[in-house]
Amino acid sequence: MAREITGFSNPLVKRVRSLREKKFRKAEGLFLAEGLRILTEAREAGVLPEMLFHAGSEHPLARDLIAAMEDAGSDVIETSPDILSKISGKDNPQAVVGVYQDRLTPLAQIDRRSADIWIVAQSLRDPGNLGTILRTGDAVGAGGLILVDDCVDPFSVEAVRASMGALFTQKIATARWDEFLDWLRQGDGQLVGTSLNTANDYQDVAYDAPVFLLVGNEAQGLPDTYEAACDLLVKIPMLGKADSLNVAVATAVMAYEVLNQKRARA
Amino acid sequence: MAREITGFSNPLVKRVRSLREKKFRKAEGLFLAEGLRILTEAREAGVLPEMLFHAGSEHPLARDLIAAMEDAGSDVIETSPDILSKISGKDNPQAVVGVYQDRLTPLAQIDRRSADIWIVAQSLRDPGNLGTILRTGDAVGAGGLILVDDCVDPFSVEAVRASMGALFTQKIATARWDEFLDWLRQGDGQLVGTSLNTANDYQDVAYDAPVFLLVGNEAQGLPDTYEAACDLLVKIPMLGKADSLNVAVATAVMAYEVLNQKRARA
Repeated sequence: MAREITGFSNPLVKRVRSLREKKFRKAEGLFLAEGLRILTEAREAGVLPEMLFHAGSEHPLARDLIAAMEDAGSDVIETSPDILSKISGKDNPQAVVGVYQDRLTPLAQIDRRSADIWIVAQSLRDPGNLGTILRTGDAVGAGGLILVDDCVDPFSVEAVRASMGALFTQKIATARWDEFLDWLRQGDGQLVGTSLNTANDYQDVAYDAPVFLLVGNEAQGLPDTYEAACDLLVKIPMLGKADSLNVAVATAVMAYEVLNQKRARA
Repeated sequence: MAREITGFSNPLVKRVRSLREKKFRKAEGLFLAEGLRILTEAREAGVLPEMLFHAGSEHPLARDLIAAMEDAGSDVIETSPDILSKISGKDNPQAVVGVYQDRLTPLAQIDRRSADIWIVAQSLRDPGNLGTILRTGDAVGAGGLILVDDCVDPFSVEAVRASMGALFTQKIATARWDEFLDWLRQGDGQLVGTSLNTANDYQDVAYDAPVFLLVGNEAQGLPDTYEAACDLLVKIPMLGKADSLNVAVATAVMAYEVLNQKRARA
């Protein structure tokens, strides 16, 4: 259904804008994604927004998106660039903003055999790191990201943006540590932690699919008890003064090693 | 010289706070770094701040830093947590804030033979990416980061924080593209671009030290003419829907491959 909104005080504009805050996302079970690139990735992954806002864009990808929404009988709202700015909180708003249903998958519904790599992040704090990890997950053919303990909201505007659309191709689950571990041990899965407390070079070990790559909080790394629960601890060599990498970088270096070993066997 | 500042309107507090803005950093040739971890990394790399602000921290690392500053006859300023908050722009300020001289190295003074890997970034926009790339550079034993064309300021508070101190171990140079290329071709150096426009798998080629890893802008990647100037273009495999990685992730995957090839030969 196509319609037009021109007023800043329109209740729908206020409601959509409120999705920039976690409490409203949680209450509504909805989140925002912005920009043709991300919304097109979503559409290619088979996901259309509940509502689409645009400011009369003539871009072919915007027209495609609008046509797909209309075919599906979904809400397409034409509005002004100023109102798009208000929704997105940016001076130069993207041409389109979509409102999506949140995409959490219950752990029990994850088919671990559907991918060789899964990423597990514990107490991740930075939305940019979370989104970047999703984007890397998409690139290495991971199945998804399991968020353990209290992580930043994967549906925050910053995380969605950093994921560059990978949010729509990767499964996302949340769990407490014990809950995750119970689930993991009900089937196959090699839990691999990245740690300084080991002599195992990350290139000198064999990874067995499905590999669950476990990375810890940005400041603290993994708790000792979590490391102790791993099937394998590995170390990425670091030659410099510092003893750690950015968590999204460490995840990518590990994930590409797993992928490269698989490629070498193929 | 140790002294105390208790007033918010103290001119020095205002001046130091102004270093959060690029124009004042540029005018003064100074920048801010915050937190014991980063300032200690700097000290271990042999770099002390021009001025050190603290709020009476009793942490052993803070005491070491203060002692080193006093030995060097440098300015140590004790102040209140509130004033530290004002300087750092954060509610929970770090225990120490240092004011450092900017650390740009003229390209002509870079000794390319001092390291096997150099990172070259073009038109990088995000300070977090820049700092993360520095941090990765430190980890792989790179010599430094050459910033080509208009990049974000490497001395911004966000970049310094994301570098986790690597700003003090990595050389940082800036150059226009032509200037960089002129300098590069005056000596050894394999210029390697990461690109989608090639069939070369990044693991199927041999890297020759010193390798200059060239990465492009977050949104646009490398311009065609820049790719054409490379000695080698390589592609990181991507299995997912998206056709790119976060630039700091791509840099790390490449840099670890160069390091791993060197480790395999050793």
